[in-house]
Parts: sequence; structure tokens; C-alpha cells
Amino acid sequence: MEVTGVVLERPHSLSIRKIEVPWTSEPGPNEVLIAVNTVGICGSDVHYYEYGNIGDFVVREPMILGHEASGVVRKVGSAVKHLKEGDRVCMEPGIPDFMSLQTLRGMYNLDPAVRFWATPPVHGCLTPEIVHPASLTYRLPDTVSFAEGALVEPLAIGVYAAKKAKIQPGDIAVLAGAGTIGMMVAYSALAAGCAEVIVSDFAKEKLAILGKRPEITTVDLGSQDLMEVVAERTNGRGADVFFEASGSTKPFDTMFKVVAPGGRIVLVGMPAEKPAFDVVALEVKEISLTGTFRYANVWDRTLNLLGSGKIDVKPLISETYPFEKSIEAFERAAEHRPSDVKIQIKL
Amino acid sequence: MEVTGVVLERPHSLSIRKIEVPWTSEPGPNEVLIAVNTVGICGSDVHYYEYGNIGDFVVREPMILGHEASGVVRKVGSAVKHLKEGDRVCMEPGIPDFMSLQTLRGMYNLDPAVRFWATPPVHGCLTPEIVHPASLTYRLPDTVSFAEGALVEPLAIGVYAAKKAKIQPGDIAVLAGAGTIGMMVAYSALAAGCAEVIVSDFAKEKLAILGKRPEITTVDLGSQDLMEVVAERTNGRGADVFFEASGSTKPFDTMFKVVAPGGRIVLVGMPAEKPAFDVVALEVKEISLTGTFRYANVWDRTLNLLGSGKIDVKPLISETYPFEKSIEAFERAAEHRPSDVKIQIKL
Amino acid sequence: MEVTGVVLERPHSLSIRKIEVPWTSEPGPNEVLIAVNTVGICGSDVHYYEYGNIGDFVVREPMILGHEASGVVRKVGSAVKHLKEGDRVCMEPGIPDFMSLQTLRGMYNLDPAVRFWATPPVHGCLTPEIVHPASLTYRLPDTVSFAEGALVEPLAIGVYAAKKAKIQPGDIAVLAGAGTIGMMVAYSALAAGCAEVIVSDFAKEKLAILGKRPEITTVDLGSQDLMEVVAERTNGRGADVFFEASGSTKPFDTMFKVVAPGGRIVLVGMPAEKPAFDVVALEVKEISLTGTFRYANVWDRTLNLLGSGKIDVKPLISETYPFEKSIEAFERAAEHRPSDVKIQIKL
Amino acid sequence: MEVTGVVLERPHSLSIRKIEVPWTSEPGPNEVLIAVNTVGICGSDVHYYEYGNIGDFVVREPMILGHEASGVVRKVGSAVKHLKEGDRVCMEPGIPDFMSLQTLRGMYNLDPAVRFWATPPVHGCLTPEIVHPASLTYRLPDTVSFAEGALVEPLAIGVYAAKKAKIQPGDIAVLAGAGTIGMMVAYSALAAGCAEVIVSDFAKEKLAILGKRPEITTVDLGSQDLMEVVAERTNGRGADVFFEASGSTKPFDTMFKVVAPGGRIVLVGMPAEKPAFDVVALEVKEISLTGTFRYANVWDRTLNLLGSGKIDVKPLISETYPFEKSIEAFERAAEHRPSDVKIQIKL
Repeated sequence: MEVTGVVLERPHSLSIRKIEVPWTSEPGPNEVLIAVNTVGICGSDVHYYEYGNIGDFVVREPMILGHEASGVVRKVGSAVKHLKEGDRVCMEPGIPDFMSLQTLRGMYNLDPAVRFWATPPVHGCLTPEIVHPASLTYRLPDTVSFAEGALVEPLAIGVYAAKKAKIQPGDIAVLAGAGTIGMMVAYSALAAGCAEVIVSDFAKEKLAILGKRPEITTVDLGSQDLMEVVAERTNGRGADVFFEASGSTKPFDTMFKVVAPGGRIVLVGMPAEKPAFDVVALEVKEISLTGTFRYANVWDRTLNLLGSGKIDVKPLISETYPFEKSIEAFERAAEHRPSDVKIQIKL
Repeated sequence: MEVTGVVLERPHSLSIRKIEVPWTSEPGPNEVLIAVNTVGICGSDVHYYEYGNIGDFVVREPMILGHEASGVVRKVGSAVKHLKEGDRVCMEPGIPDFMSLQTLRGMYNLDPAVRFWATPPVHGCLTPEIVHPASLTYRLPDTVSFAEGALVEPLAIGVYAAKKAKIQPGDIAVLAGAGTIGMMVAYSALAAGCAEVIVSDFAKEKLAILGKRPEITTVDLGSQDLMEVVAERTNGRGADVFFEASGSTKPFDTMFKVVAPGGRIVLVGMPAEKPAFDVVALEVKEISLTGTFRYANVWDRTLNLLGSGKIDVKPLISETYPFEKSIEAFERAAEHRPSDVKIQIKL
Repeated sequence: MEVTGVVLERPHSLSIRKIEVPWTSEPGPNEVLIAVNTVGICGSDVHYYEYGNIGDFVVREPMILGHEASGVVRKVGSAVKHLKEGDRVCMEPGIPDFMSLQTLRGMYNLDPAVRFWATPPVHGCLTPEIVHPASLTYRLPDTVSFAEGALVEPLAIGVYAAKKAKIQPGDIAVLAGAGTIGMMVAYSALAAGCAEVIVSDFAKEKLAILGKRPEITTVDLGSQDLMEVVAERTNGRGADVFFEASGSTKPFDTMFKVVAPGGRIVLVGMPAEKPAFDVVALEVKEISLTGTFRYANVWDRTLNLLGSGKIDVKPLISETYPFEKSIEAFERAAEHRPSDVKIQIKL
Repeated sequence: MEVTGVVLERPHSLSIRKIEVPWTSEPGPNEVLIAVNTVGICGSDVHYYEYGNIGDFVVREPMILGHEASGVVRKVGSAVKHLKEGDRVCMEPGIPDFMSLQTLRGMYNLDPAVRFWATPPVHGCLTPEIVHPASLTYRLPDTVSFAEGALVEPLAIGVYAAKKAKIQPGDIAVLAGAGTIGMMVAYSALAAGCAEVIVSDFAKEKLAILGKRPEITTVDLGSQDLMEVVAERTNGRGADVFFEASGSTKPFDTMFKVVAPGGRIVLVGMPAEKPAFDVVALEVKEISLTGTFRYANVWDRTLNLLGSGKIDVKPLISETYPFEKSIEAFERAAEHRPSDVKIQIKL
């Protein structure tokens, strides 16, 4: 059918216009029809807007952007039990083959058949109405607003990284990278049991935002030495966990040094180059290292954390634009202002 | 040598008096001499005071009470590196055989040879100076007072239970028992990643203290139904974790019902009877169940959590008595006032 | 459509006859049509045959029996990629809702909506042709016969129990119960890393079968003391793992005693009564206990173990009947001969 | 006191001679005196013999070689309970500080204070009598010979790697490196639950030894493609586990490719260079990677596996020399014959 969406055709060519999509407004038995309320602009949306691709994912056909969304259920499929018309919800944007090997094993995010919103050639959700699998649609607690609901997607990346880190209560973590994802990781790591998170970056504005939390120690890499701060904060023992969320190869020089014997490293950022791997340093400390790819099975627990107030993401919303000003919203996001964290669009 | 201590001879016969002890004031190479500053009174101390025994542990010889202690290092042994004179510290009261099978496996608390303060026939620490293994003596962060340092022992029970529960960020836990240990478990579970803890008990005063935390839902078993509250708080899914800290057999009727498939149960309380075990209920949900015996390897992480402010135990100190009024302190503790949580003695 | 099946109407009323079933011989996009080759008779089939029910599952309508099956793919649905016509396969008999919460979490066996073959009112597979989800249909390695393929189902229960036991290489396990499932657990535990399994039962014939493996120590409970044997085999340390597969409450008296500190218990058998639970015994050893419900995600690894020869189940096939003699096969199974392990029907 | 030992002074300068050592023949309370029976020559012994150093560990003072040993207890210290005179034993060669942070956490191998036999400046055990901590001295099962007992040390490296790999029953593993340690890893991985191990190397003789086991598939890298073999053996899914035991950087190109989503990598070999690290490849499969440093807490389970016959290392003993011909034994080992696996010295 035809819908109105925020459509990208090629780099910088973005418009609000009608476009033919391969779905109808009638949900299947296990689907729901949702009136989209709020959509956040992700770094990946901006990257497609600026460059027309992310790695091998190239925008070849006009594509609706957006994958961080909340909304209201308008119609439920015949087999749907946990949702009803009028429910306030947010949506997990990656749809796997529900019968795949990976899904059955509980890691549906690793299913190669996943269709992810606004990843070419799959349309995103910056359009008034969408149809979505009910099992990937989550009811918002009463205490969680639509704006927060649209922040569940990036926060889920942080919660998932924290879950993968197997944090034990009272751990001290080091985090490289204070960007939006880094912030989500920092808040998630604290919510997940860390006593303290030491965040390093060159971006003073971002560190200032993080530094407002008493359990976060910030390290300005332009003037401070991370190794020294970690040694001081851990009585020389080293950190229990290291999160890499900068996307740079630089932290690979220091991560094995600042982590204590038996420590864990979780890689979230995707560096463009392959860093040198200090195998012996990893071995003599028996460090465990893993990486994350988006998330799986954390949407409801992320909502629990927002709902009970353990994580507060409201201060991260820098500006909200109405749907009609979506192009303006993208231009603002593409300015990459140092103090901006999240730009949202309200439908 | 001879020391002055708070000595129990038989039920209700408690005095501050001189007593011969099997140690000297000269620390061995791996030991430290500590001037005791603050000692908390534990339920077990009170139980020995009232009954002269706990199960098979019977006070047959005069014994110094107390095992929740903080103090100041006065002298360090020749091989001690991580402590120095003047350090403010707290002490882990169970001393294992450091070469035992259990110690080498990282579960020194399960070593049958553990000598635990104020567990007959081992003297406790309600005496001005003690000698202790340096590796079980922990430096207090600057932000942690002596009074808080003396609360690390009961809090460590909670942190250890939370660690054993393998909490994942955003879990919802149910806790049976709002006594002192229950409180420690509740705060620890929240610090360890739970989004919410639902605490059930009949003791209104204790529930009122816990209910001050927004992430804690209290259930007064005299007037409320735990099953209903859990169903409501978890959208009918059930809780991720259940902690039993009441010491009663009652919760064994409900724990398998309120936990979700794949959930975990951690038993902390020690019931006097053997409850009926609903094996099939556990199996069809594949619930994992374990129990804790004191703690191991959580002292430093407990201090991390106190130091960064993630757990605040200060409001739990109901009253502090000077050393000279130790007997009065025990009499007060033996009153079991509903609003009392922790009575401490300052040396 | 109408098929010919081994149909149970009420206790002891079993016949090979035509029956109307709710499926057609045309597989859906994600399904395959399979010509059934071999079907094993499970204890549950026999129980339905003898009593007409298992607990609350009552045979109210005529129902085809059988859920341990192998066969040959005859037709594949349009979306099926990993199977093709002519493939020799075996089938996992529990079909979950693939979009359920439990499935997404990797524990599809705990989905309350699971439809399990030959569990009323769901038909089983003792019929020449069946249609099944492709993702629950597994190709047999060339080295695995149809007869072995039809034994994957009970063996999967053992492999799953062994997986849940988190066996570490060189563990010593104790197993209560030498019946068919106990045997599967014993072989699986050895394949999964146990150095030795100590099996206890009163059934001498079954123990004799198990005792042929040098790594299995048998304990005849009629004449031997399990505690003594375990102490002797473990140098007094206790076992690392305990499997309960007898379905009796008796082992609950000894399991906490024979397990070492930090040990694990996996409950597979479903006792009719609720045994007394020695909570304190579990706590002072910090034993971890869990239960299993059928299996999930172990079908392919079970086939790996059969295919490479690490587990050999061929000696467990006591007798094979042709499809026409299915009633005879059930009568034989209902004799419960001490030396019988598995009766199979060949189509 | 003065003992006779196989003493290395500088590269290739090895002699059987008297040397002053810092211990006496009187065991301390927690020690035992052992008459050494058999000592295996390790690659590290040969490396010291040939080069006088391994990395920063330089032989500066005359040092007794050898750390793979079995023997007979001659005298036990006053506090020793689990051993008695005449016991046949083998010895774990790394002695930690038993009160260190790492020891208490169950990872005593990572204690920086570990004193390891034949690692400068610590003497090894190629001498008729040694004194050793009782808790690191293990009784041999009756079915394990002295020669096998002296092979526990290298086998423990394999068992520890297999334990770290968190093998689940039926896993398929790939192993890079068919040297002595690779062989130990291969046998351990099979004993620990792998259905199959695919071993790759250029060394045909070593592959031929491994290929005798039906569950081992060998890949001659001179003529075969590892990727193809793994794809074929795993139906295109990829391996569950990858062990790197070649010490080369080459496998770092392929390990992320042959491992399935959610797979695990364990690094045992220590490459001289730092390989390029394909971070994105690890992330999109969420691979878990860790490394091992010697071993901890696996000595008794290694003996269980040898004792029950699950691992047979006897065929790996290439030649045994009497103590008087120790120099000859080292010369033979330094020949690095392709068909040699283990050279032992009998005292």
C-alpha cells in the first residue's frame, strides 16, 4: 500500500513523501498495527543520510528511515494475547526468522535472516502507521513516556552489553567512549551492578553529562592518564570489566592493561581497522572477551529499569521536532553538536 | 595473653571482664594488629546471649562475643603489603585453612576448618585489640565510616546472595523476610541489577523502612496476597529471582509459583524444619535453586558499593552504645524492638 | 484427512485403524512431509496404554500414540533450506509457539503452548506419514541408523540433563535410577565429561547392562550402601554431580549427603509425592539444584554424539516389531520385563 | 642443603651434579617429602637448555630443570591429613601465595607471586628428593602409573583449556596445533564432551598420531583447506569451539570464520607477534574468547580422567631414560624428532 514517510533516496536527499510499501494496514494473526508516536534519530540514520551507506549496506532504492520508536496499538491480530488496542508500546526493530536455529537458541539477533528497520533494503518506521510482530512489541509501564519509549532501542544496546559483561555486584568498570551508546552503556553498567564506572573520552561535553552521576568518574584523555586513574580507583588491582564503545582502535592498547586478572571485556564499538591483538597479555590474566551485535531478549528488562527509575534517560533528549520538520531534525543531527545526545521526532 | 572483652559464660551471663586468649599482640608475618573501633551486634550474638547455643554450637567455655567489626591498623606483619599502620579497616570474621581444597577452589567459606569469630569455641572481637590475617582485612574507602564498616559483615551476606542469584539487569526479585538480613538482601539485589524487589513479611515496621526505596514494593502478608502482587508487577510472567530470608518454611509453598520459567531461587534463611519440596513444580519451570553459607570473596565489592553510595546502610543503625555499656546494648538488642535494625558498640 | 495409525481409545483399547487427523499431506512453507520409518515405545506411551492418562493429561478422544521417531523426507515446504527429499531424519516431538517469550529466550520447551506428540489431545507419530516443522527435523549422520535415530528422543533427555549439570571434565557423578532414562543420563554424563558415573538402583538386570562400561560403578541398593561407595570412589570428598532419575522420593534423603561442597543436582524423575527438603544441608554446601523438562536445543548435539560413536545406544534395543504387530509390541512393553530397555516398531 | 640435580648453567651447559638448594629434607607442617620417580621433559625445559631463557625469564644462576613429576611420599608434615608415607603421587609445580587475592578467588595460577619449578630463579624437580606443599600433591589412582603421573602436568593444560571452553555435550571443536600441548587439548576436549575435534597442522607425523582416534578429524594444512573441512563436518554451521595451541599468529585469520555464532575461542599458544584482531567478525557472531595461563584446580579431575581410562596418554611416551642418562635425554629432546611426543627420565 502507499504511506507517507521520511524517505531517503541518496545522500542528503531526504523528503517527507508518499511511498509504496510491501505491507498493508491489516495485521496478520501474530501482528499488531501501531500508530507511531515518537521516533529517535540514531547515528546510523544520520550516517545513511550523509553517506548513503554503512559498509556494505547501501541505500539503492528509496527507503524510509528510523528504527527507534514508540506508539499506540491500533489493531491486534487474531492470535495476539498480551496486547490490546490503545496500549502504549515500543518496538524492537529487528525481525528474525522465528524458526531459525539462532532464534531457537535464544540469540535471534544473530540470525542472518534478520530484517532490521532502516537497514537497506528494509524500510524504517518514520511513518504514521506500521505493522509489527506482536512478540517484538512491548507495553510501556505507566511511568515511561513515549519519548523514553523511543529511547529503549539505544538503551537496550547498553543493557545488553551490561548483561554480556556478567557484572557482579560491586564491580568497577572502565568504559572507552562517551558518545550516545557509551552513555547507554555507562548507565546500564551502573544499573546492572557496577559500583563505579570510569569513562574515558576526549569529548569534554559528553564527559560533563556523564560526570553528573556520583558513581561515574570521567577521564579526559586530552589531559589525564586512564591507567593512573584506574590504578587509583581500584587500589592498584585493575578494573573488573572493560567496555569498548568508542569505535576506535586506540583502547585496544590499554584494555588488557587496566583489567584485573580474570576480568572481562565487552566490545560494542566497531572499529574501521583491525587493531593489534596482545594475545599474551590476555592469556596471562585469563581475560574473557566478547562482543555484542545489537541485542536480544533485553527489551522488557530495559523497560523494567526505566519504569522503576533505576535508569533515567530523559536528560539525554536534546531536542524534539514535529513530524513535518523531520528534515530539519536530520539536518540538526548531522551538525553533530558536541552537547547534543538524542534528537527525536514526534508524530 | 590477657585481654578485656565482652564475655559470655552461659545464657544471660554476660560481663565486660579480663580473659585469657590464645593470641599475643604481636602479629605474625601475614597478620595485622587492629584497634577495634566499632562492633555491631548480630542476631547470632543475641541468640548465644539468650540461649547459650545455636544448634550444635554450644558455649561451653567463656567466650568473647562479636564478629561485625571495624577498626584501625596498629601494626602490620613483615610480609603484609596492602596495609599500613593507621589504615581504617574492617575484618572478615571467618578464617579458613588457606591451603584447603575449598580455599584453592575459591569457596573458602565452605572449608570445614573455618574458624569464625564468636562461634564456640572461637572468641569474637568485642575487645580493644585483635590480631587478624591481613588478607581478610580490608581498607575502608574514605567515604565509609567506622559505623558503616562494622555493617559490612551483614551486608556481605546480602551481596553474596545477590551474586549467587546471577541477577541480570532489569530482573524483578521477590524476597521473603524483611529482617536485618532480608534488608541487606533487598538493598544488595537492587544494587546488583534488579529493577525492582517485592518484599513480603508480616512485620509492618520493617516493611515501612524498606518501602522508602521507590524500587521496593512491600507486601504485608497479614493483609495482602503475594501471588497477586507479583502477577501484577510482572504482567503475569512471574519473578526472575526469589530470595528466601525469613527462615520460615512458609515461603516454600509459594516460591515455585511466583517464579517465572527459568527463574532462580536463593535460600539464605535456615528453617528449623524441612519443608515439603514440590519437585515437579521446579522441574516444569526448570528453576535453579541454590543456598548460601555466609559469604566468600565479596568483602571488597561490598566496600565498593558502600563507597560509591550505591548502598546506604546508615539509616539502619538504630542505636550506638559505648564499650562500657556493652551489656546494656545486648539487653536492648534482646528486646527485639520492631523498629530496631542494628545496635552497635563503639570502643 | 484420514490416516492409518496406532490409536488408543481408552486403557488397553489399542488398534491399528483409520482415523481423521487435522493435517493434510501437503507441508506448509516451513514444514516437511516425512515417511515414518521407526518409532520407539516410550514409558509414557505404555502408561497411556495401561491407564489412559498421565496426571492431568487424559486420553478423552482416540489418539495416535508414539513420539520417538525417525524417517525419510518425502516433500519439503517452499521456505525449507536445510532439508531435501530423501534425507534420513529424526524429529523433535514438541512443537512450541515459535513467537513465544520462552522460544525467543531459548527455552522453547517451557512454552506453555507446546504441542507434544501423543500427549492428549495431540496425536503422535505411529502412522506412515507425518507433517512436521522443518526446524524440528534433523538430518541423521550417515553413521546413524533409523533405529538409532528413533532413540534420539530419549537420549536427548539424558544429554539435556548432562548439559544442565554443567559438568566439568573429570567430574564424578552419582545417578539414582537405572531405568531407560537413567541409562540415557549415565551415557550422556560420561559423554559430557564425567570421568565416572556411580549408578544406584535395586534393578540388578539394568545395573548389569550399565556395568559393562568401565567408567560406570553400579550400586545395588539391595545389598550395598551408596554413601560408602561414593566416599570410597571420591576419596571422601563427595560427588560433583547428582542426577535423580528414579522418580522416587528416596534419593532426596541421600543426595545432599553424597554431593561435595559446591556440587550440583539435576532432577529428571518426577516423584508422585513431595519429599522433605533438607534446606540447611543444601545451604552449608551451597549446592546448586535444578530440574529438567524434556529438552531444548540438544537434538543436533545428540546426533553429533551418536554420529561420532561417543554414545552407543544400539545395545539398548531389546526387540523390533513390524508396524502390523504394533499391538503386540505394546503388550510386550507392558510386561515390563526386567531385561527390556527399548521396544521399537518398524514401519 | 646440598642435593644432586640435573643443573643448567647456561645454554647447552647441562650436568648432573651437586648443588646447594634453599630447602631441607624436613617437610614443614603442611608439606611432604617426596622421592621423585619420573620426570617428563617439557618444551620449556628444552627451550631453557637451548637458549637459556624464555622471554624475560633468564637462567642467571645454576638451576635444576624439570617440572613434570611423579613420586612416592617419604615423610608428611604434622598438619597433613590426606597423604601418608608410601603414597604414590604427582605434584603441581606452581606454588602460589596461599593468602593472595587470586588464591582466595580460586585462580591461584594468576597470583603474581607464584613460584613455578624450573622457571628462573626457582629450581625444578630433576633431583631424587623434593619437599612440596601437601595441598599441591595428589595421590595417583591405582590404575595410573608413575609414567602417566608425570604426564599429568602437560595434560592438565589441556584439561584446563577444555574446562575454560565451557564445552557442552556434543560440541564440535577445531584445534590449531598438533604438538604435545595440542594433543593434550584434543584428548581433553573429547573427554570433556566434544563429539568431534578437527585438528589442523602441517606436521603429518603428529596428525597421524591424533588421527588414530575416530572422533578426531585431521587437516593437513599443506594440502587441505580447514574452512572447507569445518563446513563439511558441521553442515555449514561452523564449530562450537576453537582452541589455538599452535603458538602461531596464522590461526587468527581463520578462527572467527570457522566458529559458529555464539561460539567460543580458547587461546593456549603464545604467539611471538601480535596478530591483527578482526573485532567486527567477533562482534557479529558474539564470539566469546579467553586465554589460559597454565592451570588451576584441575589436577584431581585430570587424575580422575586418567584413572577411569577416559584419557590414555601412555602412547605419547616416546622414550624413557634413566636419571644417569638425563643429559642424553635432553639431547634427544632437543633433536625435535617429528615422531617424538614425550621424553621422560626415571629416577
